[in-house]
Amino acid sequence: MKKIPVAVLGATGSVGQNFIELLQDHPWFEITALAASKRSAGKKYRDAANWLSPNPLAQRYGDMVVRECLPGLPAKLVFSGLDATVAGELETAFATAGYVVVSNAKNHRMEHDVPLMVPEINPQHLPLIKRQQFGRGFIITNPNCSTTGLVLALKPLHDNFGLESVQVMTMQALSGAGYPGVPSMDILDNVLPFIAGEEKKLESEPLKILGRINAPGIELETFKISAQCNRVALSNGHLENVSVKLSTKAMARDVIAAWKNFRSDAVEGLPSAPQRPLIYFNEENYPQPRLHRMINGGMTVSIGRLRPCPVMDFRFTLLVHNTIRGAAGGAILNAELLYKKGYLNEQ
Amino acid sequence: MKKIPVAVLGATGSVGQNFIELLQDHPWFEITALAASKRSAGKKYRDAANWLSPNPLAQRYGDMVVRECLPGLPAKLVFSGLDATVAGELETAFATAGYVVVSNAKNHRMEHDVPLMVPEINPQHLPLIKRQQFGRGFIITNPNCSTTGLVLALKPLHDNFGLESVQVMTMQALSGAGYPGVPSMDILDNVLPFIAGEEKKLESEPLKILGRINAPGIELETFKISAQCNRVALSNGHLENVSVKLSTKAMARDVIAAWKNFRSDAVEGLPSAPQRPLIYFNEENYPQPRLHRMINGGMTVSIGRLRPCPVMDFRFTLLVHNTIRGAAGGAILNAELLYKKGYLNEQ
Amino acid sequence: MKKIPVAVLGATGSVGQNFIELLQDHPWFEITALAASKRSAGKKYRDAANWLSPNPLAQRYGDMVVRECLPGLPAKLVFSGLDATVAGELETAFATAGYVVVSNAKNHRMEHDVPLMVPEINPQHLPLIKRQQFGRGFIITNPNCSTTGLVLALKPLHDNFGLESVQVMTMQALSGAGYPGVPSMDILDNVLPFIAGEEKKLESEPLKILGRINAPGIELETFKISAQCNRVALSNGHLENVSVKLSTKAMARDVIAAWKNFRSDAVEGLPSAPQRPLIYFNEENYPQPRLHRMINGGMTVSIGRLRPCPVMDFRFTLLVHNTIRGAAGGAILNAELLYKKGYLNEQ
Amino acid sequence: MKKIPVAVLGATGSVGQNFIELLQDHPWFEITALAASKRSAGKKYRDAANWLSPNPLAQRYGDMVVRECLPGLPAKLVFSGLDATVAGELETAFATAGYVVVSNAKNHRMEHDVPLMVPEINPQHLPLIKRQQFGRGFIITNPNCSTTGLVLALKPLHDNFGLESVQVMTMQALSGAGYPGVPSMDILDNVLPFIAGEEKKLESEPLKILGRINAPGIELETFKISAQCNRVALSNGHLENVSVKLSTKAMARDVIAAWKNFRSDAVEGLPSAPQRPLIYFNEENYPQPRLHRMINGGMTVSIGRLRPCPVMDFRFTLLVHNTIRGAAGGAILNAELLYKKGYLNEQ
Repeated sequence: MKKIPVAVLGATGSVGQNFIELLQDHPWFEITALAASKRSAGKKYRDAANWLSPNPLAQRYGDMVVRECLPGLPAKLVFSGLDATVAGELETAFATAGYVVVSNAKNHRMEHDVPLMVPEINPQHLPLIKRQQFGRGFIITNPNCSTTGLVLALKPLHDNFGLESVQVMTMQALSGAGYPGVPSMDILDNVLPFIAGEEKKLESEPLKILGRINAPGIELETFKISAQCNRVALSNGHLENVSVKLSTKAMARDVIAAWKNFRSDAVEGLPSAPQRPLIYFNEENYPQPRLHRMINGGMTVSIGRLRPCPVMDFRFTLLVHNTIRGAAGGAILNAELLYKKGYLNEQ
Repeated sequence: MKKIPVAVLGATGSVGQNFIELLQDHPWFEITALAASKRSAGKKYRDAANWLSPNPLAQRYGDMVVRECLPGLPAKLVFSGLDATVAGELETAFATAGYVVVSNAKNHRMEHDVPLMVPEINPQHLPLIKRQQFGRGFIITNPNCSTTGLVLALKPLHDNFGLESVQVMTMQALSGAGYPGVPSMDILDNVLPFIAGEEKKLESEPLKILGRINAPGIELETFKISAQCNRVALSNGHLENVSVKLSTKAMARDVIAAWKNFRSDAVEGLPSAPQRPLIYFNEENYPQPRLHRMINGGMTVSIGRLRPCPVMDFRFTLLVHNTIRGAAGGAILNAELLYKKGYLNEQ
Repeated sequence: MKKIPVAVLGATGSVGQNFIELLQDHPWFEITALAASKRSAGKKYRDAANWLSPNPLAQRYGDMVVRECLPGLPAKLVFSGLDATVAGELETAFATAGYVVVSNAKNHRMEHDVPLMVPEINPQHLPLIKRQQFGRGFIITNPNCSTTGLVLALKPLHDNFGLESVQVMTMQALSGAGYPGVPSMDILDNVLPFIAGEEKKLESEPLKILGRINAPGIELETFKISAQCNRVALSNGHLENVSVKLSTKAMARDVIAAWKNFRSDAVEGLPSAPQRPLIYFNEENYPQPRLHRMINGGMTVSIGRLRPCPVMDFRFTLLVHNTIRGAAGGAILNAELLYKKGYLNEQ
Repeated sequence: MKKIPVAVLGATGSVGQNFIELLQDHPWFEITALAASKRSAGKKYRDAANWLSPNPLAQRYGDMVVRECLPGLPAKLVFSGLDATVAGELETAFATAGYVVVSNAKNHRMEHDVPLMVPEINPQHLPLIKRQQFGRGFIITNPNCSTTGLVLALKPLHDNFGLESVQVMTMQALSGAGYPGVPSMDILDNVLPFIAGEEKKLESEPLKILGRINAPGIELETFKISAQCNRVALSNGHLENVSVKLSTKAMARDVIAAWKNFRSDAVEGLPSAPQRPLIYFNEENYPQPRLHRMINGGMTVSIGRLRPCPVMDFRFTLLVHNTIRGAAGGAILNAELLYKKGYLNEQ
C-alpha cells in the first residue's frame, strides 16, 4: 500500500510535535511536509523546533526543511496543530485549496457543517463535510482534550439511560497549555483554579458530539453541563470528577456494564484505535494519571470510583491523556476514519 | 492576667506540632504539658519530635519532657491532636477526669451532645456540653479541614438564600495526610482521586454545624451534599470547587455581598479570630493556595470565581488553610470562645 | 528622621517586585518612584505588574503611576532590578545624572572602579566609587545570588586558613530565572544541568569580593574556583555543595568556629543586617531550603555537613535565599551601608 | 531453549517489583517463584504487593502465590532485591543451599571473594566466585545506583588517561529510597542534602570495580573519590556533576572520543545490554533526567557538558537510570553474563 502524503501545520509547536511523534511509524500516513510560521520556514526541523518529548525525533523529520504554512504543500491531508490565533483563516485556506484538513484547533469546531468527531461516538456526523463549500477540500475537527474524555464516558450513559445533567470538575495537566505554557513559579506548590476558555468548551462541545444530524447541521443535545476547570502540577493526563443525573433509573452495575460493553464498529481496524475505548477500575483509588494515562498508547479513557451521588444520580472519576486521545491521537484517529470510510479516495 | 494552663495531646504528631506552633505566643493559653505515646514519654520534646515547620521550635518547648498521654497532666484544658485510632477513648478519659477537651479528632464529632464548632457559625451550640455526663469535664470538636472551608462559605448562603443542595470537589494538600503521610513517589506528577473517609465527613459535618439545637442534641440540616475528594501536589491549603442550589432566587451580586458582609459577634476579641472570616476575590484566577492560604495568619477562607451554574444555581471556588483554620487554628479559636463565654472559669 | 527618597528601576519585573516588597516598611528609605519600560509607563503599578508574592502589595504602591525608566525620577538613590539587556546603559545614564545607583544587575559588577559588595565582607571596597567619573552619581553592585552564599561561607575560611581552591555545585531555585522563567514542563520531574552564564559569575565574582583594593581598582584573589550549576524544582533558596582546599591545616572544629565567630562591624545597626550572617547546623541532613531559607528574614546563609574531603580538605553544604540575601535584600543592605558610611549625605 | 528458572527475593518491595517488570519477557530467564517476608507468604502476589509501575503486572505473576524467602524455592538462580537489614544472612543461606545469588543489596558487595560487577567494566572479576566457600552456590553483586553511573563514565578515562582523583555531586531520584521512601512533605519545594550511607558507597565501590584481581581478592584502585549526595524531586534518574583529575594530559576531544569508543565484548549478545553503554550529548543543557533516562531501555548512561575544570582537569554531567541500569537492570545484566560465561551450566 502506498501511504497517503500528509503535512503537519504548526509543526514546531507542542501539538505539532505530538503529531510528528505519533505519525513516525504510521502504517497509512506519511509525513511529506512540516509547515510552520515564516520565522521557522527554511530551517531544518531539528533547528526550528525545541523537541520536547523523551522519545527522540526521527532522523528523517529532523532533516526536513520547514515550509511556510501556506497551501502548496505536497500532501493530500493536513493535520492542523495551529494556534487558535491563526488556525481559523489558515485552515479555511487549505480546505479551499483542496486539502483535507484534520484539525485540533477550536476555531471551526462548532460550525454547523464541520464534524466535531470522536470516531467511536459520532461517525455518522462525517457526511456533514459534503455540505461544506470548499470544493474537494473539507475540514473535520476533534474536540478539546477535556471534552474528549468526558464525552467518551458519557456516551454509554447517554445511550443506555439518557442524560439530564452533568457536573464536571477537572484537574488538568500542564501539557494542555502548550509550550512554554504555565511558568513553573505559578504551579510549584500551587493549583490554578482557572483555564481561559476551557469551561465553555466543555459545556458545549459534548452537546454537538452527542447531537443528531439534521437539515442545517447538528441538532445539539439539550442536557445541561456545568464545568469547573483547574490546572495542577501534572505533566500529562486530565483527571475529571463527574456527577450525572440520568433520565432513567439505573443500578451501579448497569452503569459499569454500559462502560465495559461500549464498543464501536466504526473504529474496527483503525491503527490508532485502542483495544477498548473505555476501561473501568474497581480499585477505590484509581484511575491515577501517572499509572493509567498511557494505557493502550494513551488512547483509552480510564474510569473509576462509580458511586451514587447524593445530589444527582451517580458520580465517578475519569482520566484522559490530553495530548494523545485528547489532541493529536484523536485527530489521527479521525483521519483514519476518513480513510476507512473512503473520504480520502474520493478526491 | 494569669494564663490558662493547657496541654497538647499527641504533641509529637503533625497536628500536635501545629498546636505548639500556634500557641507559642498565645495571650491567654500557656502550654504546661506536652503528651504523647509511651514511646516518646520521658524524652525531651526536641528529641521525641521530628519538628516539621520552617518556624523554629521555641527553646522552652524543646526542653520540655514529654509525658505519657494520660490524665494527671498539669493543665485545665487539653488540645487533642490525637490520631483517630486512640482519640476516642483517651479524650473520654480526659473529660471524665475533669479536663476541658478541645479536639481536632473525628471520633466524637457527630455525637449528639458534643458541639462541632466553627465559632463564627454556631456559637449557640456550645451549651450542648452541659448535656455531657463527664462532671466538670467536657469535649468540644472542630470539623474536618475541608468541611471548615466549605461550611464557612455556605453559612452566609444558608442564612440569606437557603440551601437546597451542594456539590463540592476538593483538591487537598499533602499536609492533610499528616506525617509521613503520602509517599513522594505517589504524588510526583500525579493526582490521587481518593482520600479515605474524607467524602463522608464533608457530606455530614456541615449538616450538624448548620443544624439547630433541639431536645436530644442537634437537629441536622437536611440539604444534600455530594463530595468528591482528591489529593494533589500541594503543601498546604485545600482548594474546593463548589456548586450550590439555593432555596430562593439570588443575583450574583447578592451572593458576593452576603460573603462580604458576613460577620460574627461571637468571635469579637478572640485572639485567633481573623479580621474577616471570608474574603472574596474578583480576579478570575483567584484564590490560589500559594498566594492566599496565609491571609490573616491562615484563618480566613478565600472565595472567588462566583458565576452562574448551568445545572444548579451558582458555583465558586474556595480555599482554606487546612492545618490552620481547618485544624489546630480552628481548635484554638474554639478554646478562645470557651474562655470568652465563661466555660473555662466555671470550673 | 526624613526618609531618603528612592526609586525602583525595572519595578514590574521579579527583582523589582522583591525590592518593593522588602522596602515596604523600611525605616530609612521611601519609595518615591516606580520605573519600568515604556510599555508600562503611565499605568498604575497594580495594573502594570503581575504581582507574584503571597505578601500583598501595599495600597500606596499599587496606586503609584509607573514612570519610564529615565533620569528625572524624584529620588536620590535608585535600586536597579533591570534586566541585563538594558541595565548597562540605563544605570550609566542614572549615575551620570547624579543618582546613586545600587544595582543587582551583572553589567557593571566586574568593572575596575565599581564596588562589588557584600557588606559583611568588603566594606573597605566602597571608596572605589570615588574613582568613578560620574560626578556626584555612582554605581555599586551586589554579586550574583549563588556567589553571595558562597562568598559569605568562604570569607571566614579565607581569613583564618587561606583558600587554595574551591569546587562548588549548585542546585538553584526557579525564582532565580525571573518570571516567567523556567516553563513548568521543563522542570516537573526533571533537573536542568545548565544555567546560562551562571558558572562564569560564580568563578569570578568571589575573587573580586575577596580581593584587595589597589591603585587601579581591585586586585583579584587568585585561588581557583570550579562551579557546576543546576536548576531544580524549588521555589526559593539555592543549595550549594562545596569542597575547599585550604592554605593551612585546620581541624573541623576550627572551621566551624570560624563560621560561628564570623561578625562584621560594618553592618552594625543596618536595618536589613541579620543578627548573624552565618548559621551552622549540626544536624546531618541540614540545611534544607524549605526549612531554613527564611532564617532572619532570608538574610542569613545556612551551612551544614562540614566533613573532611578525600580529595580536597573539607566539604560542606550551604543555603542562601536567592531573591533576598542573593538579590534585592543584598542590594538594600548595600544601600544601608552607603547611608551609614555617609555616602548618601555627601551629595 | 529451555529458560532458566529464577526466583525474586524481596519480590514485594520496590526493587523486587523492578526485577519482575524487567524479567516479564526475558528470553533466557523465567520467574518460577516470588519470595517475600512471612507476612506476604501465602497471598497471591497481586494482593501482597502494592504494584507501583505504570506498566501493568503480568497476569501470571499476579496469580503466583508468594513464598517465604527461604531456600527450597524451585529455581536455580535468585535475584535478590532484599532490604539490607536481612539480605546479608538470607543471601548467604541461599548460596549455601546451592543457589546462584545475583544481588542488588549492599551487604556482600565489598567482600574479598564477591564480584562487584558491571559487565562492561570488570567481567574478569567473575572467577572470584570460585573462591567462595558455598559449594555449588555463589553470590555476585552489582554496585549502588549512583556508583553504576559514575564508574561507567570513569572507566574509559581510567583506561585511557588514568585517574588521580574524582569529585562527584549527585542529585538523586526519589525511587532510590524505595517505597514508601521519602515523605512528600519532605521533598515538595525542597532538596535534601543527605542520603544515609550513600557517599561512602560512592567513594569505595568504584575502587573495587576498577581494581585488579589478585591473590586474596581484588586490589582496590587507589585514586581518591569525594562524593556529596542530595535528594531532589525527581521520580527516576540520578544526575551527577563530576570533576576529574587525570594522570596524563588529555584534550577534551580525546575524552569525548574515549566515551564514544567505549565498547565491551563481554556483553555482546546479552539481551539486556544496551546498544551503547555510554552516550555523549553536545547540547549544553543535556543530559536531563526526564528526556534521557530511558535511552536504550534505561541501560545507557548519558554524559554531557564536558569542559575544562579550573581546579581539576575536566568536569562533566552524567545521568543514570537508578532503578534500571543502577539496580534491577544491572543485576539482570550480571545474570546474563553468568549464563554467557557458562556459570549457570556448570551447576
